[in-house]
Amino acid sequence: MTPDQRSLAERLLDGDKRALARAITLVEDDRPEGWALVREVYPHTGRAAVVGFTGPPGVGKSTLLGALTKAERARGRTVGVLSIDPSSPFTHGALLGDRIRLTEHFLDPGVFIRSMANRGALGGLSEAALQAALLMDAAGREVVFVETVGVGQAEVDVIDHADTVVLALMPGSGDSIQALKAGVMEIPDIIVVNKADHPLTDTMVREIRGVLSLGSQSGWRVPIVKTQAASGIGIDELVEQLEKHREYIRGEGTLLERRRRNLMNEVVAIASARMRRQLEASIRSDPAVQELLDEVVARRLDPATAATEVLARNARKLEAERDGA
Amino acid sequence: MTPDQRSLAERLLDGDKRALARAITLVEDDRPEGWALVREVYPHTGRAAVVGFTGPPGVGKSTLLGALTKAERARGRTVGVLSIDPSSPFTHGALLGDRIRLTEHFLDPGVFIRSMANRGALGGLSEAALQAALLMDAAGREVVFVETVGVGQAEVDVIDHADTVVLALMPGSGDSIQALKAGVMEIPDIIVVNKADHPLTDTMVREIRGVLSLGSQSGWRVPIVKTQAASGIGIDELVEQLEKHREYIRGEGTLLERRRRNLMNEVVAIASARMRRQLEASIRSDPAVQELLDEVVARRLDPATAATEVLARNARKLEAERDGA
Repeated sequence: MTPDQRSLAERLLDGDKRALARAITLVEDDRPEGWALVREVYPHTGRAAVVGFTGPPGVGKSTLLGALTKAERARGRTVGVLSIDPSSPFTHGALLGDRIRLTEHFLDPGVFIRSMANRGALGGLSEAALQAALLMDAAGREVVFVETVGVGQAEVDVIDHADTVVLALMPGSGDSIQALKAGVMEIPDIIVVNKADHPLTDTMVREIRGVLSLGSQSGWRVPIVKTQAASGIGIDELVEQLEKHREYIRGEGTLLERRRRNLMNEVVAIASARMRRQLEASIRSDPAVQELLDEVVARRLDPATAATEVLARNARKLEAERDGA
Repeated sequence: MTPDQRSLAERLLDGDKRALARAITLVEDDRPEGWALVREVYPHTGRAAVVGFTGPPGVGKSTLLGALTKAERARGRTVGVLSIDPSSPFTHGALLGDRIRLTEHFLDPGVFIRSMANRGALGGLSEAALQAALLMDAAGREVVFVETVGVGQAEVDVIDHADTVVLALMPGSGDSIQALKAGVMEIPDIIVVNKADHPLTDTMVREIRGVLSLGSQSGWRVPIVKTQAASGIGIDELVEQLEKHREYIRGEGTLLERRRRNLMNEVVAIASARMRRQLEASIRSDPAVQELLDEVVARRLDPATAATEVLARNARKLEAERDGA
């Protein structure tokens, strides 16, 4: 451990925003110092309330997070916001526009906002995002909001690691209702219907109630909170429901249980992402693997047999590296 | 190779529906005979037109596929339909209800219909589904429709292996439009607006046109086909557009290119799924790994370091197995 790193860890644990920003960049860039840093500060994590926000694009999640951040600050809590951007190039305009709604908090030392973009590496993003959330936790953020678009496994993986999952919808979110109804989308802990000044809001709330009544609701009853984030309406009730859910999971012992499961999933996710990345790299760089693929394309070798071959080559390579190290 | 397997392969290549059903079950159950069978018949694949259907639940994809199957049969083509069910237990009622719309084809030897359920093993389903599609192809199905719900990475992986991707929407599919707009959902080759007797159909079509105009459209212009699948309206136009897209990708050489990329992805997907499954099994069964996880939960060992440890243990185990074999 170099003295430089130690001081970064110290500054991070002190809650220094610049140290936190630097630390997250190290992790995002997959730098060994970043991982070493997480290792060092990890014993100081586990105190933040991690709240995951998901929902289709366009429902106003960023506005909602801006309003929530303000409300949490008014209650004296420090806040970290981690926004996960989806992968497409022509996204940026739209979503970074949304981010502007969070700018009023940029100068507040009690608020740390960070955007992470999906770099296309499957699992790579959620891997980095989870580490970033740990770093925010270690830096003393009392509430950490993780925002993702609820499409794609990588985003779902991120949300899975939250203590509380909030699904944000709006009147017109028919596809999401159908996905909930069909069981394709998991039932969250809290549902927000934003843009609740829309005339179809109550229809939407009724539809959601209908879907929720299909499942078995033992213990926690999923609340539906109507908000108009842009004008702050409904935000206090949302904060209250977040607190209630936190009390609930803490009281029932579910928080520990949930975190144990989440941490296990995280270990599996990190390991799987590494394996996959290594595999993809070996496929790109190994001429023998390229030849195997040519055979597959020519329909002489089937994909499953090729996969077995690739895995065997990979295992041999790994073993050789380990023996050499 | 046992004589029994050979005869199954022969019957499959002859187009025998019972042999095809048996073969898919072997693959779905992850039986070695299943994989051996795919290996054997793989050289006879690559002739079917594989069309992937995705879209939110409730838009009527099964009805659409029923109508399309009828139309393809009327043109003298044999059809295979592979429906991927999402994972939740309370799905079954709803989706199997939809399946009934396909029953009129069950007695037609030119139509083979198969449903696969997500057994929760990440990657496991898409792995099996892709093999099932290959088996249908080998059994001489000229058109293979693969239907999934467009949420979750596993479903997207399945669709990625199609020659042509069709996105089915309906008036009210606001979330999907937003996801397309934000670039979270990829632009498909053909968009269907089903339930087009709804008064908001033209609004929906305009919105889709707006989204499509944002992207760079060189070469193939994504058609929007209005259908009322339940009464067969618009189905002929959809068949025509499917044929046009097939001609287009064949003419441009994109079919070969697409298939090369898809087959590569398939090899990576199969290999990744196997690695992940192995990893999960080792995590469940290995007491040393359980101890590592306890350390993570106690915040004494960070998840990334634990993942490194788990991977190293796994590699040693694999190597030992390989040496022993």
